[in-house]
Amino acid sequence: MNKIAPTILQGTRDFLPIDMAKRNLVMNKIKKVFEKFGYDPIETPVICPAETILGKYGDEGERLTYNFETSGGRKIALPFDLTVPFARYVAANYRDLPIPFKRYQIQRVWRAERPQKGRLREFYQCDIDIIGTKNLVSESEIARIIVKVFKELGFKDFVIKFNSRRLINEILRSLGIAEEKFIDVIRVVDKLDKIDKENVIEEIKKLGFDNAEDIFDAVLPAESIEKTLEKFSKYDLKEIKEFIKNCEDLGVPKKYLEFDTSLARGLDYYTGLIFEVIGKGTSLGTLCAGGRYDNLCSLFCNEDFSGVGVSFGFERIMLVLEQMGSFENVKLNSKVLITIFDENSVASSLKTYSELIDAGINCEIYFQPDKLKKQFQFADKKRIPFVIIRGPDEMKDETVTIKLMESGKQKTIPSKQLTSYLTEYYETEK
Amino acid sequence: MNKIAPTILQGTRDFLPIDMAKRNLVMNKIKKVFEKFGYDPIETPVICPAETILGKYGDEGERLTYNFETSGGRKIALPFDLTVPFARYVAANYRDLPIPFKRYQIQRVWRAERPQKGRLREFYQCDIDIIGTKNLVSESEIARIIVKVFKELGFKDFVIKFNSRRLINEILRSLGIAEEKFIDVIRVVDKLDKIDKENVIEEIKKLGFDNAEDIFDAVLPAESIEKTLEKFSKYDLKEIKEFIKNCEDLGVPKKYLEFDTSLARGLDYYTGLIFEVIGKGTSLGTLCAGGRYDNLCSLFCNEDFSGVGVSFGFERIMLVLEQMGSFENVKLNSKVLITIFDENSVASSLKTYSELIDAGINCEIYFQPDKLKKQFQFADKKRIPFVIIRGPDEMKDETVTIKLMESGKQKTIPSKQLTSYLTEYYETEK
Repeated sequence: MNKIAPTILQGTRDFLPIDMAKRNLVMNKIKKVFEKFGYDPIETPVICPAETILGKYGDEGERLTYNFETSGGRKIALPFDLTVPFARYVAANYRDLPIPFKRYQIQRVWRAERPQKGRLREFYQCDIDIIGTKNLVSESEIARIIVKVFKELGFKDFVIKFNSRRLINEILRSLGIAEEKFIDVIRVVDKLDKIDKENVIEEIKKLGFDNAEDIFDAVLPAESIEKTLEKFSKYDLKEIKEFIKNCEDLGVPKKYLEFDTSLARGLDYYTGLIFEVIGKGTSLGTLCAGGRYDNLCSLFCNEDFSGVGVSFGFERIMLVLEQMGSFENVKLNSKVLITIFDENSVASSLKTYSELIDAGINCEIYFQPDKLKKQFQFADKKRIPFVIIRGPDEMKDETVTIKLMESGKQKTIPSKQLTSYLTEYYETEK
Repeated sequence: MNKIAPTILQGTRDFLPIDMAKRNLVMNKIKKVFEKFGYDPIETPVICPAETILGKYGDEGERLTYNFETSGGRKIALPFDLTVPFARYVAANYRDLPIPFKRYQIQRVWRAERPQKGRLREFYQCDIDIIGTKNLVSESEIARIIVKVFKELGFKDFVIKFNSRRLINEILRSLGIAEEKFIDVIRVVDKLDKIDKENVIEEIKKLGFDNAEDIFDAVLPAESIEKTLEKFSKYDLKEIKEFIKNCEDLGVPKKYLEFDTSLARGLDYYTGLIFEVIGKGTSLGTLCAGGRYDNLCSLFCNEDFSGVGVSFGFERIMLVLEQMGSFENVKLNSKVLITIFDENSVASSLKTYSELIDAGINCEIYFQPDKLKKQFQFADKKRIPFVIIRGPDEMKDETVTIKLMESGKQKTIPSKQLTSYLTEYYETEK
């Protein structure tokens, strides 16, 4: 029979147990922080009516999104982010939701891009949002959560850049730039973390501004929050100042905050404060980003929900943590392998297995009698620290031999003591 | 502007926070049991090359599966179960896997059916499999896991029906039924839990057998495992007996096992022992099913992987647990709401929030000053047990008022004692 190649699409991934162990470690830490701040998870469908996903994105959206027609003629699309499904979700369910509503959502999204190096077509996004309040308490909570997440994940050096969309607009207006040009200028200024000063100025010139250097200088921050506040004191800094004050009251250490007046976040979507988290010393740049938006659900209903939210770049965070060596000690679930010496010891090994399970120890049995060497190799491959041997001698003496895989040492103890030996070990380990 | 209806496809679902709380409760209990037995999770892609999903299913598969062509001409399909993706995964990755390999997998799958009442087009499946060993230790482990899962979930009355495909075939052969008719007869016999004896016999007759009653009597079990073993003693019962012995050694209580010689599991896929878990006293029948198969990966490679696995009917289990009232006390994440009395108390409330977060208490702040009544209603809607009030009096006296939402009682304590008050409460609760 001809075989089908067991391939997957480029930009999608099979996750091996060790990959999952790493991913779940990180995901659980992130979830735990969200839950600490009272966020609850939600989930939205994967297969969606195409119009609810493509809504405002037109042709380009259609090209970049997985979408198709069913045999029944229904056009379906897969989400390309979690914001659009969340907007639809709120419009459909707001009557049943506590408002202000905050949720976290960790799900896959899909992009029908031609996958370049490292570009994924299927990946996880990890979003938090607070909707239904314009109060800047929300923004400071987001900052506090960001700090806690990255600290829990073991990041030492990171910074939350923040700015206000309103402030940028005010600055550009004061420079005499026409409103309809704002977004173009913002897009160029936003490149400052990727290209250098000269090139940014060059690109501003290309937009038709002779005073490109003035524009550039006018948006650049000073070297500290205080000095930047001073430099821009002729503008309305009320929301910036309130945000900083809230952060202080909520215990966000100042060292993590950077008031970057050149920060713009490309999309025209944001209307208030914007955020970008940079992992210093990593090559991967932005690890989390977001901001305040108005009218989340305007595509779907007339209710006016202002909100603020950020998206954690889960896949990127995984790459950085891998580079940082954070996963070196990651283990799989099983802590003990019970070997089966020969046909005559199956019953005895099964009984040992049952005892350890009852004692609450994560363990497993090698499913068939085999050479011990092969069973040890299996334990090695699964990174299992303890291997239990119950051969004819042990059965006769009512003992059990424990092999510590790391050191290769073996010790034989009375069978009765096995459970407490292992339980103690795990209590010590914690 | 015209609004887009915020609808979802029939047979898909939005999960509200309370739905998620219930689902995660159940999912986490199930995962924990799997992990106890040394199972590790894996994940496979959602968008797949169509041929890897549709492989052997031909036109019917194509009709019942979500599949489509990209603009680049690649045919893509979404998984309709987790077995086919797992087979593909093993064929692609077996060199990197510890063999015998066991994994659990909990992911969404899709069925392009016309959704009837309660039929879902998008739902979670929850599978465990052990591959790479033919030893019946595996089957007994599956039985032990099933018992532990259902006990952990609070099921009191359930039974694991088991049988052997080999035994059924032997019985049918001994009745003079032609091999090519086996699957038809098995399909009819399998209906015994849905239609009554007379109708089953009638249907067997329709297949062209005059001795329908004999066939029926010949496959029916006796009233206990021992008596059934006796009734079928002329057949080869070696694997059944070994399975029962292993279950005994592994601590599977006998009361959960039922040797049902009429159990067939419709598909021709299984080759050895088969299982079906019935929740007694529920109207929903089979809650988990599976069995031994050969050549898992035959579609994809020449390696011969025998395996055994079961699929837990997650969505069905959720329905039964809901009927059983298991979710009455399910709470959301947040345990404490910190109110904001007025503009002047924002800073004070933020500081309290920060303290509680640092103390590790799941809590949240109401994002803006508002009428206390409205803030209480919010707490009610989120099922938050404690509400903290810090108004002008409390701020002056350095106290804090705690409202216990369930009883409606309020008490005022010194601010300093708040953290330990709440911490103690949660320690008592555990």
